[in-house]
Amino acid sequence: MPKDMTETRTIFDRRESAARSYCRGMPAMFASASGSELKDTEGRSWIDFLAGCSSLNYGHNDPDMKAALIEHIAGDGIAHGLDLHTDTKGAFLTAFEDHILAPRGMDHRVMFTGPTGANAVEAAMKIARKVTGRTNIIAFTNGFHGVTVGALAATGNGYHRGGAGMALTGVTRMPYDGYFGQDTDTAAQLEQMLADKSGGVDAPAAIILETVQGEGGLNVASPTWVKRIAAIAKKHGALLIIDDIQAGCGRCGTFFSFEEMGVTPDIVTMAKSLSGFGLPMAMLLVRPQHDVFGPAEHNGTFRGNTHAFVTARVAIEKFWADGAFQNELADKAALIHDALTDLAALVPVGTLKGRGLMRGVDVGSGQLASAICARAYEKGLVIETSGNEDQVVKVLAPLTTPVETFRKGFDILLEAAREIIEQPSKIAAE
Amino acid sequence: MPKDMTETRTIFDRRESAARSYCRGMPAMFASASGSELKDTEGRSWIDFLAGCSSLNYGHNDPDMKAALIEHIAGDGIAHGLDLHTDTKGAFLTAFEDHILAPRGMDHRVMFTGPTGANAVEAAMKIARKVTGRTNIIAFTNGFHGVTVGALAATGNGYHRGGAGMALTGVTRMPYDGYFGQDTDTAAQLEQMLADKSGGVDAPAAIILETVQGEGGLNVASPTWVKRIAAIAKKHGALLIIDDIQAGCGRCGTFFSFEEMGVTPDIVTMAKSLSGFGLPMAMLLVRPQHDVFGPAEHNGTFRGNTHAFVTARVAIEKFWADGAFQNELADKAALIHDALTDLAALVPVGTLKGRGLMRGVDVGSGQLASAICARAYEKGLVIETSGNEDQVVKVLAPLTTPVETFRKGFDILLEAAREIIEQPSKIAAE
Amino acid sequence: MPKDMTETRTIFDRRESAARSYCRGMPAMFASASGSELKDTEGRSWIDFLAGCSSLNYGHNDPDMKAALIEHIAGDGIAHGLDLHTDTKGAFLTAFEDHILAPRGMDHRVMFTGPTGANAVEAAMKIARKVTGRTNIIAFTNGFHGVTVGALAATGNGYHRGGAGMALTGVTRMPYDGYFGQDTDTAAQLEQMLADKSGGVDAPAAIILETVQGEGGLNVASPTWVKRIAAIAKKHGALLIIDDIQAGCGRCGTFFSFEEMGVTPDIVTMAKSLSGFGLPMAMLLVRPQHDVFGPAEHNGTFRGNTHAFVTARVAIEKFWADGAFQNELADKAALIHDALTDLAALVPVGTLKGRGLMRGVDVGSGQLASAICARAYEKGLVIETSGNEDQVVKVLAPLTTPVETFRKGFDILLEAAREIIEQPSKIAAE
Amino acid sequence: MPKDMTETRTIFDRRESAARSYCRGMPAMFASASGSELKDTEGRSWIDFLAGCSSLNYGHNDPDMKAALIEHIAGDGIAHGLDLHTDTKGAFLTAFEDHILAPRGMDHRVMFTGPTGANAVEAAMKIARKVTGRTNIIAFTNGFHGVTVGALAATGNGYHRGGAGMALTGVTRMPYDGYFGQDTDTAAQLEQMLADKSGGVDAPAAIILETVQGEGGLNVASPTWVKRIAAIAKKHGALLIIDDIQAGCGRCGTFFSFEEMGVTPDIVTMAKSLSGFGLPMAMLLVRPQHDVFGPAEHNGTFRGNTHAFVTARVAIEKFWADGAFQNELADKAALIHDALTDLAALVPVGTLKGRGLMRGVDVGSGQLASAICARAYEKGLVIETSGNEDQVVKVLAPLTTPVETFRKGFDILLEAAREIIEQPSKIAAE
Repeated sequence: MPKDMTETRTIFDRRESAARSYCRGMPAMFASASGSELKDTEGRSWIDFLAGCSSLNYGHNDPDMKAALIEHIAGDGIAHGLDLHTDTKGAFLTAFEDHILAPRGMDHRVMFTGPTGANAVEAAMKIARKVTGRTNIIAFTNGFHGVTVGALAATGNGYHRGGAGMALTGVTRMPYDGYFGQDTDTAAQLEQMLADKSGGVDAPAAIILETVQGEGGLNVASPTWVKRIAAIAKKHGALLIIDDIQAGCGRCGTFFSFEEMGVTPDIVTMAKSLSGFGLPMAMLLVRPQHDVFGPAEHNGTFRGNTHAFVTARVAIEKFWADGAFQNELADKAALIHDALTDLAALVPVGTLKGRGLMRGVDVGSGQLASAICARAYEKGLVIETSGNEDQVVKVLAPLTTPVETFRKGFDILLEAAREIIEQPSKIAAE
Repeated sequence: MPKDMTETRTIFDRRESAARSYCRGMPAMFASASGSELKDTEGRSWIDFLAGCSSLNYGHNDPDMKAALIEHIAGDGIAHGLDLHTDTKGAFLTAFEDHILAPRGMDHRVMFTGPTGANAVEAAMKIARKVTGRTNIIAFTNGFHGVTVGALAATGNGYHRGGAGMALTGVTRMPYDGYFGQDTDTAAQLEQMLADKSGGVDAPAAIILETVQGEGGLNVASPTWVKRIAAIAKKHGALLIIDDIQAGCGRCGTFFSFEEMGVTPDIVTMAKSLSGFGLPMAMLLVRPQHDVFGPAEHNGTFRGNTHAFVTARVAIEKFWADGAFQNELADKAALIHDALTDLAALVPVGTLKGRGLMRGVDVGSGQLASAICARAYEKGLVIETSGNEDQVVKVLAPLTTPVETFRKGFDILLEAAREIIEQPSKIAAE
Repeated sequence: MPKDMTETRTIFDRRESAARSYCRGMPAMFASASGSELKDTEGRSWIDFLAGCSSLNYGHNDPDMKAALIEHIAGDGIAHGLDLHTDTKGAFLTAFEDHILAPRGMDHRVMFTGPTGANAVEAAMKIARKVTGRTNIIAFTNGFHGVTVGALAATGNGYHRGGAGMALTGVTRMPYDGYFGQDTDTAAQLEQMLADKSGGVDAPAAIILETVQGEGGLNVASPTWVKRIAAIAKKHGALLIIDDIQAGCGRCGTFFSFEEMGVTPDIVTMAKSLSGFGLPMAMLLVRPQHDVFGPAEHNGTFRGNTHAFVTARVAIEKFWADGAFQNELADKAALIHDALTDLAALVPVGTLKGRGLMRGVDVGSGQLASAICARAYEKGLVIETSGNEDQVVKVLAPLTTPVETFRKGFDILLEAAREIIEQPSKIAAE
Repeated sequence: MPKDMTETRTIFDRRESAARSYCRGMPAMFASASGSELKDTEGRSWIDFLAGCSSLNYGHNDPDMKAALIEHIAGDGIAHGLDLHTDTKGAFLTAFEDHILAPRGMDHRVMFTGPTGANAVEAAMKIARKVTGRTNIIAFTNGFHGVTVGALAATGNGYHRGGAGMALTGVTRMPYDGYFGQDTDTAAQLEQMLADKSGGVDAPAAIILETVQGEGGLNVASPTWVKRIAAIAKKHGALLIIDDIQAGCGRCGTFFSFEEMGVTPDIVTMAKSLSGFGLPMAMLLVRPQHDVFGPAEHNGTFRGNTHAFVTARVAIEKFWADGAFQNELADKAALIHDALTDLAALVPVGTLKGRGLMRGVDVGSGQLASAICARAYEKGLVIETSGNEDQVVKVLAPLTTPVETFRKGFDILLEAAREIIEQPSKIAAE
């Protein structure tokens, strides 16, 4: 199809918007992928420690999902079904109820939104405002919830906020757990400001948070803090929205990131790895009493990505029907912890960040983190930074990555880090 | 997979959000589809005059797209590639340049956004604001541009606006072409208010419009009006955004809905039928001088739905590489025109609406239109209403629908209409 | 006190903000004033056809108000009383009830706001939003309601709006009566857009209007239009706010500008000539059922300007206790009408604007209007322009101006106009 | 004038808005006042420890201001002069330059705004936004800046905010000095959030603060904190606005409240006691480089309250031409400190609040504070509460109050407090 590789490559420069980003640091022309490995058109291969920003928690082209999807397509299964009933949607819902909701005692309803995380966040914020009749939503420093205008108001990142070109309203920013250091109790600060009749923070419709801030630099909220935020929300008549788009689907070691925290969010937003296969899919879970939208009040053409329902069902049935996968995750989390502890030790200010399989090392500067990732890419590892200064080398490998592949990836990463650290002049010159 | 059909069916009631909508009036459990035909799990079949709200312009499961997609998946082609370069994205861009942009003399760049139309609209509005440093965007009565907070401000529908639960800002509403009848020149009114230093309408960043308002009731803007709006935008330093999400991809008889109007929009938003297969995909076209976003300034996980690139490329190559398909469309448009003229004649106040293959009949009341569609559904035709009172019976059949199928569909539609019109008491009693 | 006149004059350049305005075109150092005459420190005198922008409808230093005020001050009457009960406030309210409200059958309550028109408008808009639970307020092209952020959203003037430096929200702009010419029924347009479920204009909390747009260029709303707007407001559950700050207090020939229109506004805002003496005072009238603010919910230190209560009471008792003054106004209105008809005849495109004693001539360009006013100032007449292009020479003389003084003033104005019109080159060169 | 006292009194119930407030707790009909004494129509007298909420810092009807004002009025001095040059305005500006600005090395320009504090705050916020091209303004917990929509966004009080009926935008709330206790450095918290690229607090146009929060409960900012806030503002390109409306004009012991803090605010807002006589007057001081409004860009009819210029000039010349008055203030501040220390000792949780002559005692509950003030009123002392729970008994006596009167006032206050404290049951029953 492409006329030839060189010509095709120039098509991006000629016709793709300057908004493209990942391809700038990783300019290969990717062509195929399997498990934790990516290949380009020239046959080079990379270990994938990015996993589509945690959209490929089960790896690329999982054979069972692949088979089910091909069977579905070959059989003229519905590809696009608006929000009509389809057998595949029913099967997904059934699997999700049987293996996810019911065992966790969750009575939530599932609302399929437009298939982007931002769309699920927009819907969640709208629901909270409709339920409470209030506008204000509390969001946290370094939170990331998407870049459409409603969701962007809740996102902390100044670069993305600046892209709005207009006032972002309806959100009050508060410091996340540990933001002012371990001695400052930010939940108490939030509580004091909300309880103060002249505190100037309007009564909230919701409090929205990530239990681990993926884009924000792998900052981790403690169970205690999350539980207190949940209590504050309840006390002040606000809904608790947990944005589990990046931290959910097993990334933190359990299906939901908040499972072991003793809280029941009123709304949970999900996307990224939900389809299991990297296909666009997003939804939110909402407690029945808050399921207040009328028919199509929040609508969208692609609310039903039927192909995604097929693979999402397989993902649930294959990985979450029993505890085996979750047990594996605990072992891998330990492996990642140890490897990244080694990486952190290489850098004078290096600090281990994150939780479960959502881990990284704060190396103190964005320049250093980027140099390490760039060198790793040259050596065959796809990996990215995060954080408010891009100072965190972030590992978001597929959860299904074999131990051996993990080791190879970490070998590359540590080697890259060592090389960069031994050549500081080269970084400084960049 | 589903335990049994009855049980599966109840899963929707038990677990799917009340926001679901189409399934309420069309409660079948759909299972497969091909061309212009939908089938449910019990073997019943329907002719599809809805086409995923114009997301399936090339019908269900087009065999060429299907084959290409299966081949891609079977060969472990990339499923999710963020915005990395992939061979499939390159091939899509090349096809789009060769067969769409270049022949039409368009120098636009392509920006892949989150795969929903609303996301493309959000990005378009953000770009216009960033380019101009202004906030205000002119949108029109009965316009529909999505339901995320930024896009929803531009949407006219009060039911959807009410779902926001907060002030929708940054948009000034103006009357669409013909809104006050054919004798009132609404372009002149807009021009007067913008030119007036005390007119109270802030200088606009953009004017956004659909050339045919799909959700708004198949209202059609004349080429003269669109050209004048384009001139007003230019004169006042605003970008012209044409939202071609529903009216584009051949729906009006040409690839873009505005092709024969003598205007070059600064930004075009596309989604729905773009992937050709009903897969989630959205993008915008932006003139190079307005391609101002920095890397990832507007981002999103699913900007690169690689499966959609595969089918979208086939769609472009198969249908738009030469003029054959477009010629067919002219014939089918005439067929639709004639059939709907017959329908309009059945109703005392019936009025033909729309343009090309985006046609309908205003039957004067939402109650009547809904009754006709419900009866048609019972008789084997999937069809929906639109308009501010749901008063328009809207035909959005796949553009590839064979003439014979069109005739069958219209036979059902007219029969349904006749039955309903002859039983007015039954409607009144609903 | 001032060291000497020259030095004092420079103090303005040295220390007063660049925001000062009237003094730029009329640079005299004014020192005293009586009736319709202003005098500067050098003894020059001017006839006053500006009257503090209609804040001095009873002329400067009315002897009865003056005597009452001196007596009050000399007797240690309260100068500042917050919103405590004072004898003077009671006396004002009694006079206002006896001579204004009761005879007109108005059951409105009086709310004293901060002593600026803008503050009364802010309070009115807040009340309407609180009463209805809605945010949107309909305001009109060329309306002027003040420049604080809430009121400024309702003001049409782009120069003032630009001063906000932020988005002005909560207001929808609609065309005023006659805005698109006499053949276009703008009330019908408003009604159509409000009635349309997808019209994109949110249900309004209020419609705010001036019956004559003072700053906007002396545009006049017909009684028929105002009555229809009142009906539309009622039908759609919105309050009708008439901003009578400039057009009220007799300016249009009756105490309220809307008296002969057959409407009862839900809220009336008043300021400017309310105190009678030019002292800061503002208030709003609100129907009892809409008097919903709790104690001090809208507050402000100077809500009770007791000196203003003293003079305002005298103004009411002196001018409005019987019909004599109103009868005089009719005669003077005729005089103004005739004189300005002569002025209009001097200019090819000259058009008489306004109503009652709120009159002017649209001379077609701001440059010409300003030149005429500047020349008149040189000749001893203080007069200003208004309109979206400053194209209207506006006469806002004290209502108490003796006929002879009116004639002298108009002689100067016409002479100035003739001189300017005969020297067009001089204007063009400016 | 009033028909008779009883009848007049009912006029308030019949015709004045429910928004009236102070008169509810202090229902006397006040008629005259002199120095620190108020009298009602029946001859009862009260010592005034409220001073028009610090609008009467020089007492009621100061004989020199009174004489000058009567002379001005008697001589037909200008009462209302828009923003024309007048001899009285020139004289005020000269006095203000000579005795206030020049000795303090301040190069600020004076902008006369509408004569309410809120109007000055609105203008200040608009200037900061225009200067910086940014929207966001940092304001603090328990700050009070007025209730018009722009200023209200900066006000913390929830009761007042609720009166807006719409979203209050453009302001980010931060904790004031000491808000989280003396161990938490809120300036450091602000600095951290602003410096964080993903902190989610948009770059500010300004930081607005009161050095003592009058309405907020007499919370005091330390000089160190104010200096750090000034440095943070400068570092982040924001203007520093000090709202000195209540704390200025000598209330804290020096003319400006911030004089001894080593900061030079970019903008200072002034009102309340500025006229010296309680007449409506407001202005702002702005550094020349930030004096960016064009002519009348922020306008208003009553920007020039000439009567207020007369008395304001006398106030400056009489009290601030040398250091005598300021020296007296130090002595009185000590007296107040001692008396309120006694009051604080009466209440178990009593805490002395405030600074200079802006002092009070936090008695731990609004119910108790209100009961004390009500009892004091019965005994001949006008005094009010403040604070987020109305828990602070606040002394805002005229600065000119003779020592003997202060003692009498405090005797009443302590007696009232003792009686209330000894009768707790009575309060509880209320």
